[in-house]
Amino acid sequence: MLRHRILNEAARSKIMSAQQAARLIESGMTIGVSGFATGFPYAVLMAMCEPGGPRGLTVLGGAIGSEEPFPSMTNTGVMTRFYGWQRCRELRYKLNHGEVGFIDVHLGQFAGKIRKGDYGKLDFSVIQCMKIREDGGLVPALAAGIVNALVECSEKIIVELNTSLSAELEGIHDFGLNPEKRLVSMLDRLGDDFLPCPPEKLAAVVITDDVEERLPTRDTNEIYEGIAASVIRCLRRETESGRLPKDFTLQVGTGGVANAVLQGLREGGFKGLSMFTEILSDSALDFLDSGVFKEATTTALDLSPEALDRVTANLQTYKSKLVIRPLDVTNNAKRIDDMGLVGMNTVVEADIYGNVNSTHVTGTNMISGLGGSNDFSRSCKLSIFITPSTAKNGNISCIVPMVTHHDSTEHDTDIIATEYGFADLRGKTPKERALLIIENCAHPDYRGLLRDYFGEACKATRGAHTPHILHKAFAFQERLARLGTMKDG
Amino acid sequence: MLRHRILNEAARSKIMSAQQAARLIESGMTIGVSGFATGFPYAVLMAMCEPGGPRGLTVLGGAIGSEEPFPSMTNTGVMTRFYGWQRCRELRYKLNHGEVGFIDVHLGQFAGKIRKGDYGKLDFSVIQCMKIREDGGLVPALAAGIVNALVECSEKIIVELNTSLSAELEGIHDFGLNPEKRLVSMLDRLGDDFLPCPPEKLAAVVITDDVEERLPTRDTNEIYEGIAASVIRCLRRETESGRLPKDFTLQVGTGGVANAVLQGLREGGFKGLSMFTEILSDSALDFLDSGVFKEATTTALDLSPEALDRVTANLQTYKSKLVIRPLDVTNNAKRIDDMGLVGMNTVVEADIYGNVNSTHVTGTNMISGLGGSNDFSRSCKLSIFITPSTAKNGNISCIVPMVTHHDSTEHDTDIIATEYGFADLRGKTPKERALLIIENCAHPDYRGLLRDYFGEACKATRGAHTPHILHKAFAFQERLARLGTMKDG
Repeated sequence: MLRHRILNEAARSKIMSAQQAARLIESGMTIGVSGFATGFPYAVLMAMCEPGGPRGLTVLGGAIGSEEPFPSMTNTGVMTRFYGWQRCRELRYKLNHGEVGFIDVHLGQFAGKIRKGDYGKLDFSVIQCMKIREDGGLVPALAAGIVNALVECSEKIIVELNTSLSAELEGIHDFGLNPEKRLVSMLDRLGDDFLPCPPEKLAAVVITDDVEERLPTRDTNEIYEGIAASVIRCLRRETESGRLPKDFTLQVGTGGVANAVLQGLREGGFKGLSMFTEILSDSALDFLDSGVFKEATTTALDLSPEALDRVTANLQTYKSKLVIRPLDVTNNAKRIDDMGLVGMNTVVEADIYGNVNSTHVTGTNMISGLGGSNDFSRSCKLSIFITPSTAKNGNISCIVPMVTHHDSTEHDTDIIATEYGFADLRGKTPKERALLIIENCAHPDYRGLLRDYFGEACKATRGAHTPHILHKAFAFQERLARLGTMKDG
Repeated sequence: MLRHRILNEAARSKIMSAQQAARLIESGMTIGVSGFATGFPYAVLMAMCEPGGPRGLTVLGGAIGSEEPFPSMTNTGVMTRFYGWQRCRELRYKLNHGEVGFIDVHLGQFAGKIRKGDYGKLDFSVIQCMKIREDGGLVPALAAGIVNALVECSEKIIVELNTSLSAELEGIHDFGLNPEKRLVSMLDRLGDDFLPCPPEKLAAVVITDDVEERLPTRDTNEIYEGIAASVIRCLRRETESGRLPKDFTLQVGTGGVANAVLQGLREGGFKGLSMFTEILSDSALDFLDSGVFKEATTTALDLSPEALDRVTANLQTYKSKLVIRPLDVTNNAKRIDDMGLVGMNTVVEADIYGNVNSTHVTGTNMISGLGGSNDFSRSCKLSIFITPSTAKNGNISCIVPMVTHHDSTEHDTDIIATEYGFADLRGKTPKERALLIIENCAHPDYRGLLRDYFGEACKATRGAHTPHILHKAFAFQERLARLGTMKDG
């Protein structure tokens, strides 16, 4: 079995246990970790959490969740600094209590910043792979993320070889960057399907057959369906006016709203679209099967064991429909611009001028991170931000006078859509935008309060370019903190 | 004379007076206007301001100033909506009093948004040229800006042929975009040095010999020299550590601080650099002559008559040192990333977490516009934001707890530099950034107040990722409005 997985002689001589490999890492080091929603090197990272393992590490990684090994790494003090995107409860608590350092980064620029040396020397990287080639090249698991930059820039590499993944999946990646070549189809190849790795870099090979834990996916609901209906109306108007081709490319996330939009596209008769995404999940696979999408590129294939079996059983079909690429392709400004795609991202709150907060509760507490939201909103052809009009049983308006944290500015927002409708902000002045957002997107319970703020701000500033009253700009959020609701007494 | 300027027969038959051409434009139309700091079609625009001319126009243009024709266009109601960048006093007053609509845009995306149709149909464009070729192609004046998109997308074109410009300057432009070709040297050619223009588009040719008014350039002062010294210290550290090559490419603006930095580079013995700029002025020309810079690309050559004579008299030399390109090359995200350049932009205020406000006084009143600041800060290798530590005789701290408007977010800021020093924010958490910015950049008079805010915010939020106290976040700006100073009673 291993003969077919580890074709390189020298690599075979480096096989050791997860515990032995974990001991190579010293406290205080900076390490990279493969994976993006999937593809994490579980065995070695868990071994590091055992007594005597390294502590106080700076970890560079992507889209880590609340599944192990990350809670343990946080709780044992193995990881005291994390760079990337996370939705790990334990980590989130500690980074919002000054106990862990966190660096949030545009995912499309993450690999570039590692290469530039912005984060200093990278001592080790731990990479989950499905195969080591005869030339020593690595075939990573089903997530690309920043693994290319990690392998390039790390002084030493620990490979965690996962035999639970079919080695026949080799060929599904494209790690090429080739900036001179345009990506016309999602399936165009820019380079190799493996990562070169000089033998002297390889410090250890650990064999595992772990099957990853999975997060439950959220169901849809009426509000999500309402948002999806607004988005579909907007997209239909664009394709009917000819501004958007009928077979446009959509950047699509995961979760309830994204699923509802996909459902709406199918019901609306959209066909032959292309998909540009960070995480391709079970439901996205269904839409690829049904022909709503003809092809896809993603940085991670985050599938249930059943869906993965479906892919493995129909490998040639899926290899001709989807390619896994690193974040510096899937989230690259130039590629996004070239593809003329529609970007769709969720926000925590949007303000009446079109600025959006994707990351912070009341401007202070980090939820997950920027992710690719501004990579896409900045460079795509049509940037759509979606949000329910309210949260917490209607006590929070997701449309506010001023966002408490800015992730995408007014210039990067074309459309805001809620279950009440959408506001098309293109070519609009701030004051025109405010009226559209209040009347088309805000919940009716909050429209009066928003109109009052805007009207008063226009008056107080005598019609300034962007009317605001600084001491009232956060009145909604302050009311929430005081009364538990943004509604007026 | 005109035989050598207008080689196309059909174009010669369209010669008419500025008044006749102005009458082709109807009230309420959307028009494009050539020029960027220079190269504006003065005669036709002034003729439009005469009684009986069109009113209520939407105008797309770039870097317009307080020189005519823009004050007259604003005052007579010819222009009631403007898209682009401006530093025109009359326009600024009206757009901040609800009398004129203004759309501020990332300049690197302006041409793309015109092509996408974000601003609707473009009825006419008025383009200052130095020559019309035999094939009808236009050789514009010494500014490229968005002129390529205007000529492509306008239904009709009015050419204002300016005979005061030497026709021998032909060849100094490169209008090519060729996204597949990498710009290795500033001088590499991506396409043609003229703009194709189908004869049926050309509606009028107006002959002028106007010499443009010029804005006075600002002198340097001690504060500017202090800021420049901080920037030079930072750049030297980067080149000495090898993170930046010794012959790096610098994005450099105009005005006092930029000049002081150029002066500092010369005195510091920097040589053979490349220049990426929007406006190349007299002083930049001097630094090109002296070898500090070996070559330059710019979107406009904004020179005094004397400097322009120098260029004309040494045309071959200058043509081998500089190229004029459109904004969708000079400010393009991919090009900026490719060139690995150092971006340097001034701000109105920066906050303790590294967000910057480049455009709005107290978050409400627009000064000029984004310009290319976030095109560069977002995509360049090293993004430096510069500002004096204080303004208005020390009554305004340019470092504040929270900026009142966000143009570049914390993620797009590598360095903040004032006359007191610089803060290197790369790889730093928000709380680490705050300490660096307060201690290295803020004026000593304000450090205590900033430390107090930050300390209190850390306590109140129990060390949240980005500590803020929303009702005190704008206390500095509110104190200024109340007491005329941000200083504490």
